[in-house]
Amino acid sequence: MRLSALFVRTQRETPAEAEVRSHELLLRAGHIRRVTSGVYAFLPLGLRVLRRVEEIVRSEMDAAGAQEVLLPVLMPRELWERTGRWEAYGPNLFRLADRKGAEYCLGPTHEELITTVVRNEYGSYRDLPVNLYQIQTKFRDELRPRSGLIRAREFLMKDAYSFDVDRAGMRVSYAAMVKAYRAIFDRCGLDYRVVEAQAGEIGGDVNHEFMALSAIGEDLFVSCDTCEYAANVEAAEARAAEVVELADSEVEPLEEVHTPGVPGIDEVAAFLGRDAGELLKCLFYMAGDTPIAVLVPGDREVNEFKLSRTIGEQALRMFGPEDFEARPNFVLGYAGPQGMRAAGVRVLADSRVRARANWVTGANRADHHATGVRIGRDFEIDDWADLANVHDGDRCPRCEGGRLVVGRSIEVGHTFQLGTRYSVPLGANFVDADGAQRPMLMGCYGIGVSRIMAAVAEQHNDEAGLCWPGSVAPAGVHLVPLGKDALVEAESVYSRLADEGIVALVDDREASAGVKFADADLMGCPIQVILGKKLREGLVEIKDRATGERTDVGVGDLSRFLRERLG
Amino acid sequence: MRLSALFVRTQRETPAEAEVRSHELLLRAGHIRRVTSGVYAFLPLGLRVLRRVEEIVRSEMDAAGAQEVLLPVLMPRELWERTGRWEAYGPNLFRLADRKGAEYCLGPTHEELITTVVRNEYGSYRDLPVNLYQIQTKFRDELRPRSGLIRAREFLMKDAYSFDVDRAGMRVSYAAMVKAYRAIFDRCGLDYRVVEAQAGEIGGDVNHEFMALSAIGEDLFVSCDTCEYAANVEAAEARAAEVVELADSEVEPLEEVHTPGVPGIDEVAAFLGRDAGELLKCLFYMAGDTPIAVLVPGDREVNEFKLSRTIGEQALRMFGPEDFEARPNFVLGYAGPQGMRAAGVRVLADSRVRARANWVTGANRADHHATGVRIGRDFEIDDWADLANVHDGDRCPRCEGGRLVVGRSIEVGHTFQLGTRYSVPLGANFVDADGAQRPMLMGCYGIGVSRIMAAVAEQHNDEAGLCWPGSVAPAGVHLVPLGKDALVEAESVYSRLADEGIVALVDDREASAGVKFADADLMGCPIQVILGKKLREGLVEIKDRATGERTDVGVGDLSRFLRERLG
Repeated sequence: MRLSALFVRTQRETPAEAEVRSHELLLRAGHIRRVTSGVYAFLPLGLRVLRRVEEIVRSEMDAAGAQEVLLPVLMPRELWERTGRWEAYGPNLFRLADRKGAEYCLGPTHEELITTVVRNEYGSYRDLPVNLYQIQTKFRDELRPRSGLIRAREFLMKDAYSFDVDRAGMRVSYAAMVKAYRAIFDRCGLDYRVVEAQAGEIGGDVNHEFMALSAIGEDLFVSCDTCEYAANVEAAEARAAEVVELADSEVEPLEEVHTPGVPGIDEVAAFLGRDAGELLKCLFYMAGDTPIAVLVPGDREVNEFKLSRTIGEQALRMFGPEDFEARPNFVLGYAGPQGMRAAGVRVLADSRVRARANWVTGANRADHHATGVRIGRDFEIDDWADLANVHDGDRCPRCEGGRLVVGRSIEVGHTFQLGTRYSVPLGANFVDADGAQRPMLMGCYGIGVSRIMAAVAEQHNDEAGLCWPGSVAPAGVHLVPLGKDALVEAESVYSRLADEGIVALVDDREASAGVKFADADLMGCPIQVILGKKLREGLVEIKDRATGERTDVGVGDLSRFLRERLG
Repeated sequence: MRLSALFVRTQRETPAEAEVRSHELLLRAGHIRRVTSGVYAFLPLGLRVLRRVEEIVRSEMDAAGAQEVLLPVLMPRELWERTGRWEAYGPNLFRLADRKGAEYCLGPTHEELITTVVRNEYGSYRDLPVNLYQIQTKFRDELRPRSGLIRAREFLMKDAYSFDVDRAGMRVSYAAMVKAYRAIFDRCGLDYRVVEAQAGEIGGDVNHEFMALSAIGEDLFVSCDTCEYAANVEAAEARAAEVVELADSEVEPLEEVHTPGVPGIDEVAAFLGRDAGELLKCLFYMAGDTPIAVLVPGDREVNEFKLSRTIGEQALRMFGPEDFEARPNFVLGYAGPQGMRAAGVRVLADSRVRARANWVTGANRADHHATGVRIGRDFEIDDWADLANVHDGDRCPRCEGGRLVVGRSIEVGHTFQLGTRYSVPLGANFVDADGAQRPMLMGCYGIGVSRIMAAVAEQHNDEAGLCWPGSVAPAGVHLVPLGKDALVEAESVYSRLADEGIVALVDDREASAGVKFADADLMGCPIQVILGKKLREGLVEIKDRATGERTDVGVGDLSRFLRERLG
């Protein structure tokens, strides 16, 4: 690629639309251009990076035995009706009608369609397992598209779907995909964690997120500072707190205190001169038709995913003002668990509530709190469970001595054990060896191909620009000739490299050394070859873009040197 | 690819949905599956063919100096408003609104967007020329999707756009694309013609269609049986007819004949015992606000593209019943050119009208025709032009002695010299060497990648199935082992071929020889290697799928043999 002809124009200034560093650099280095909110065009350099990521994904999927197919973007409404997702997907789904009024969505994911395709072709246990994938443009009408390619509305994804005869087979297929994903992210040069996650709108049981570490990431996750444990904040488990046995001397008397006009936890704590962690937070929910009280320490938040899991299938909603109005004994802002169980309320407590003998709670009376409130003596618990978010510094649930650290990350992959979530409503059955009809067991596996590109850019840059890893760089080598003689030599090197299959950029423009150096740094190819004054001595200067390290190499040794460096 | 695991199931019966042979075979050979009207899924074998066509297109585009980009599917309405195409494209455009009510179309073509992208990056004559292309899923809400991939609503296209400083440059860019297109279609194994065409909704001047010959094609075109001339029927030129000089004896007298209740050309000819070619067809149009009469021989059709070109910018519409009612002298079914010019009607005649001295025309009186009607004596012509369709057997407009042949074809490519059709409304200007702002001169170049796949299938098949050319076949070799020993040998051949980069299918299923042979013929890989009884003698049988030719080859010579045959 010759910069004199390449369709790329770099920018020195930060574009107004740039929200994060990767977005800024991909724009400034002429890799992408915004078309409309969350919709981008890939220019030649950006497309090369995208295609190289795509090729890494494809080769690892093929190596794992998955087979590539290509499903359409347009999907009929009926198909999505059958799984209930036409409604459930809500406004994130782009919907349209054709000239005859038939309705379609633009696929954000393809469970419905692939399940139908497999159902139509396969019907025997002998046909399975099979794992099909595609690399395709996806659409999602995000409420707030942002950070360039990281949260776009039109984006490139790899999605794969496995079909097995039983759960054991599903887990084997799943494990093969997790292994392939690790290989993909390793090859792309990403620093990432495999994180246990809760199920979202895709449904199913076990699932993992592949999180690229980044301070600008939208997703919080926790990892142990000692062992391999990692989970997203919603799924992260607490270590069951030990029961605290108290000496009599530590037992505080139950007292009621006047706390006028301070209904918030932090305000009450400040008013009473206590830590928020000494207060007991008591929140009310409706679980189906039954009111429940949920207790967590005052410095924790209720985790509604965990709460949902605890109460099972029932619909969950927090008390609204009308629920309080209907129950005058429940005093908004001044509620406590005292007497609740007797009043027919199911009381659920986070296991951390065991760790303290005396609590400050609401007194179930406006403008009053109670201190010295004690489990067993003053209130009772129906069920203990893990109901609160973990915090930075919590003890690891898996290992002794480990502490959890909260970090930010960008989700670049997600794998799900779906079970029969789609095969049952869509009738994807097979006849088993015993002659019985059974639903296929499915897994699904997504990778954000264009998002990987942005995540790599986010992790690999410095003040001067992008620092692409060799595996995904638009070119392995950036040739920077300074002067006319140097240009002749650069053209000769360029041809030799092309013959050896090494893609290079050559800056054959009539531009100053300053402009050429700045653009080379901005575009971020891993190795710069500067052909300057030392050419008279038969030497070129090599600059490693990422480390800044410089080495002089003889012109005759250049090919060998580059081959070795590019692996 | 091992057939025991490959996601493919063949069908012996013709699917009800199959309309043409290629469609039937692509379905039966498990290459594609229909999702909804005009929307298809590509299964592994079909996707391999599609990707191989795509790679041929990409390599020739790159070799021609075009640069690959990737534009989005979603395009904002505003952009299409600016060129008037939001309205003009009509119901063929898929339209949708996002969650905030902003409107988009799904790109059927990308002139608007690419012109905007180039305008934003480039502004000097020094930047040009540039030619950008993409290979991307396109959408067109066809009224009647049909013939499988040949007329689909979601399809894969390569579209390219060139930008030049002047018309001479545009023509150079255009010629490079025509050359690349020829190379692409040659490599795909298509029998095709490059055909002069009229401009459609894309606009612009010179354009060519690349037509794959096929009896099931929707597009008629003519070609000369002697020289290289070819054009689609709408654009095909007539050879200017010589003026016929008649002896007095040949002059028929003008007579009026009673022709009650026979207003049609064919009916009048039969009634009078004449050929349709002896009658003069006289049709009325409104050209803007002016009525015009158009004369063509009775055995020809008026070509409205040619008529539009002749009358220039004015809006053209044929007379409706209300136009005849408003003008009692114009007798529907019995009109003739006599006296029309005097009545203020502009009379246009096809040049073929010169070739006959005496005509039968309407007598401008209900139920009456006139015979012996003569140009000059009985009616006058304002303008002569080429206004009728050419017919099979017409003389070639370019060479002496050549005759035109009408054929059917599938349009697989289309190239346009657009001029400033898009650069002016979208403001894609550049500063020229003299400091003046000028609009860029554009060309655009489309290839139907998925349609090529269907056209190749349409041209390359026989009673037993597909006969893919080696360049686009899903695999070069189909290994057919018969029996267990043969399977072991086949696996060994399969591995050796894979090491040499030759992709093979191996039929490792427990199936009868009949099933294996039938599937191999249906799937259509160019070379079948049958490992059967002769294996004891160290021989395998090679079957050339297209010719049916069979050759015995020693196992040890197989790799070399296949390498040579696959080029």
